Amino acid sequence: MSPVTPSAVALQATQSEVFDQIRNDALLSSSLWANIALAGLSILLFVYMGRNVEGSRAKFIWAATLMIPLVSISSYTGLVSGLTVGFIEMPAGHALAGEEVLSQWGRYLTWALSTPMILLALGLLADVDTPDLFTVVAADVAMCLTGLAAALVTSSYALRWAFYVISCAFFVVVLYAILVEWPQDAAAAGTDEIFGTLRALTVVLWLGYPIIWAVGVEGLALVESVGLTSWGYSLLDIGAKYVFAFLLLRWVAANQEVVDGSGLTAGTGSGAAPVDDD
Amino acid sequence: MSPVTPSAVALQATQSEVFDQIRNDALLSSSLWANIALAGLSILLFVYMGRNVEGSRAKFIWAATLMIPLVSISSYTGLVSGLTVGFIEMPAGHALAGEEVLSQWGRYLTWALSTPMILLALGLLADVDTPDLFTVVAADVAMCLTGLAAALVTSSYALRWAFYVISCAFFVVVLYAILVEWPQDAAAAGTDEIFGTLRALTVVLWLGYPIIWAVGVEGLALVESVGLTSWGYSLLDIGAKYVFAFLLLRWVAANQEVVDGSGLTAGTGSGAAPVDDD
Amino acid sequence: MSPVTPSAVALQATQSEVFDQIRNDALLSSSLWANIALAGLSILLFVYMGRNVEGSRAKFIWAATLMIPLVSISSYTGLVSGLTVGFIEMPAGHALAGEEVLSQWGRYLTWALSTPMILLALGLLADVDTPDLFTVVAADVAMCLTGLAAALVTSSYALRWAFYVISCAFFVVVLYAILVEWPQDAAAAGTDEIFGTLRALTVVLWLGYPIIWAVGVEGLALVESVGLTSWGYSLLDIGAKYVFAFLLLRWVAANQEVVDGSGLTAGTGSGAAPVDDD
Repeated sequence: MSPVTPSAVALQATQSEVFDQIRNDALLSSSLWANIALAGLSILLFVYMGRNVEGSRAKFIWAATLMIPLVSISSYTGLVSGLTVGFIEMPAGHALAGEEVLSQWGRYLTWALSTPMILLALGLLADVDTPDLFTVVAADVAMCLTGLAAALVTSSYALRWAFYVISCAFFVVVLYAILVEWPQDAAAAGTDEIFGTLRALTVVLWLGYPIIWAVGVEGLALVESVGLTSWGYSLLDIGAKYVFAFLLLRWVAANQEVVDGSGLTAGTGSGAAPVDDD
Repeated sequence: MSPVTPSAVALQATQSEVFDQIRNDALLSSSLWANIALAGLSILLFVYMGRNVEGSRAKFIWAATLMIPLVSISSYTGLVSGLTVGFIEMPAGHALAGEEVLSQWGRYLTWALSTPMILLALGLLADVDTPDLFTVVAADVAMCLTGLAAALVTSSYALRWAFYVISCAFFVVVLYAILVEWPQDAAAAGTDEIFGTLRALTVVLWLGYPIIWAVGVEGLALVESVGLTSWGYSLLDIGAKYVFAFLLLRWVAANQEVVDGSGLTAGTGSGAAPVDDD
Repeated sequence: MSPVTPSAVALQATQSEVFDQIRNDALLSSSLWANIALAGLSILLFVYMGRNVEGSRAKFIWAATLMIPLVSISSYTGLVSGLTVGFIEMPAGHALAGEEVLSQWGRYLTWALSTPMILLALGLLADVDTPDLFTVVAADVAMCLTGLAAALVTSSYALRWAFYVISCAFFVVVLYAILVEWPQDAAAAGTDEIFGTLRALTVVLWLGYPIIWAVGVEGLALVESVGLTSWGYSLLDIGAKYVFAFLLLRWVAANQEVVDGSGLTAGTGSGAAPVDDD
């Protein structure tokens, strides 16, 4: 009548257990709640900033940017609840071999949704072609999912790093696009100043994630504290998500005529041509 | 030689157990098989209706619409098989705290694929920009995935509702697009009549889903029957998927010259310009 | 302090156990490592071939194509590590009913990311509309995910085949697009020769996957060897991924003026119009 299956019980034990463990670790707990608070404030601030945004294209960039803190608050709520966190037993060869390590694997999964929104915002600013954007987003999603695989492999230490290297290879594809290809498009669209600022912020901060993975508990474990590793990711998220989105929205609010009067209006790939005709 | 691992056995026990439990519950079972039957009939009907559709754009809308019942039949087959259904132990604070509740979590997962097809169909009708469509689809997918998280959190009653609120926030982004932004595009494309009908159907029915969640077994549990909750979702699906798709296809079949002769031909964002040149 | 939960232990036991079992099966093991080696060589070769590619559109097709072996090497690393492989107990009615069968379910999951890149490359060559591409990619992802469901259902033999049939229905949508719709676009874009070659390669090889499923261990089990079934998929992957990508890149390198001087430059849907103006 009320069947309690072993696996369901086990999984729920894990979730509640992780939930309690996170709640009792002030350093870890604060790294998550700080982001929930900041994401919540960002959402309120961005809704307020969007009140005076007019023009369909400017409104659309605003909506895309608003998604960034919305996805982030979802991600951190998942971590705090214990739903997207689990204990991983490290394989032979790892500094913590045989020990159970708290893995925040949900971070990698939700980055697969939040980082495409950041690339979408950058791509819209630079007025890149739709298929180009699609390819870079695919590389970005693959980067996040292979990062997830690197975190979840427990059978072999070497294969954890194999996934790390593959994830970095996808990252190189993304870096190539935003460092080499898109600046040319941004120059043609007349948005190179703000694009340059946001690109620099993104490239510098995104480089921090693989570094934290490498030195943190999941990689070489030079830093053995789950709380410190978590704060590392959380600080990067603050810069790469909320500061990024704030700078973008402030620029859009102040430059609506550039956004709506330029090639950006044409949307996908028609580039600067309409500007000449005006 | 034939290793039987505990976790594999446990998961399979759950799947077969759920499969049997659904089969023995006539109310629950009928809510699923009714949709499999209707989705199957819709597929046959839509293939028949597509026989006389000509013009590449009309054929393409037809193919996109055909996807809606195809995804739906996949979703309900997953529920009936027990693959995407599981027992969830409700946390303290929930009306059924400590009890095992049958959660049809697969619904939320497959909505992440079926609802984008509905938005794609609406967006095509209104001839919206591709990046605009991309953003709304991203908000829609995030809405479904945070709904999934709301269903799966068992560590905290408050965090179940936190995910519910976040999911509704994404829903507001989707509603904003189809209520405020896209009608202007539809008017420019000359498809505002059918767009208005389908938008009204979509908005009214989609509002039903969070209401059922709130009053059903997973939320406040005012309705404690899993079968009744399931029928609620199933009835909404019938309207929002098969009726929606039927109305759209009937209109496309009768208005092929509008579809293929208008700005819709230009595809992505170039809008009404080609019409002037003809 | 270091809580070892039953479910975590069970899942990790499975992963390490599967890892060892694969390592000790030379036929199975070689089917996976052969692809890791070939994918790695393809990546190096394609990076080398891309050195002289110029023009933004040609570079972009090159980047999209490079993704194909990158996703493939991720997929096979996941299989080799045991992360995306598991034991499935076959339901009554199956030839191996009650036995534990090694299921490489990760193949279906990663195809959901790799096959869209192949369709993207074909679609770019044929210069198809973005929403058209989006629909075909959605059908393709649904085909892979219902294939995954077919592999994971253990409650009912009939429902395994139900998912197989549904997956094939999505395949028909994909086939319809690349056999009927896209050739017209390719002819207009002047790329019909290479498009025809790659389309033939894709259609013939992709038809092999459902055939292997049907006769292999997961379907009728006419072939009962997991290693032979795995080699079947691996050989198809070699043709459909590395050979496909090589032919495409060689053509792009030799025909950069066609790629960048034609309607392809316009990106999405503006089709052949710009060519007339040149």
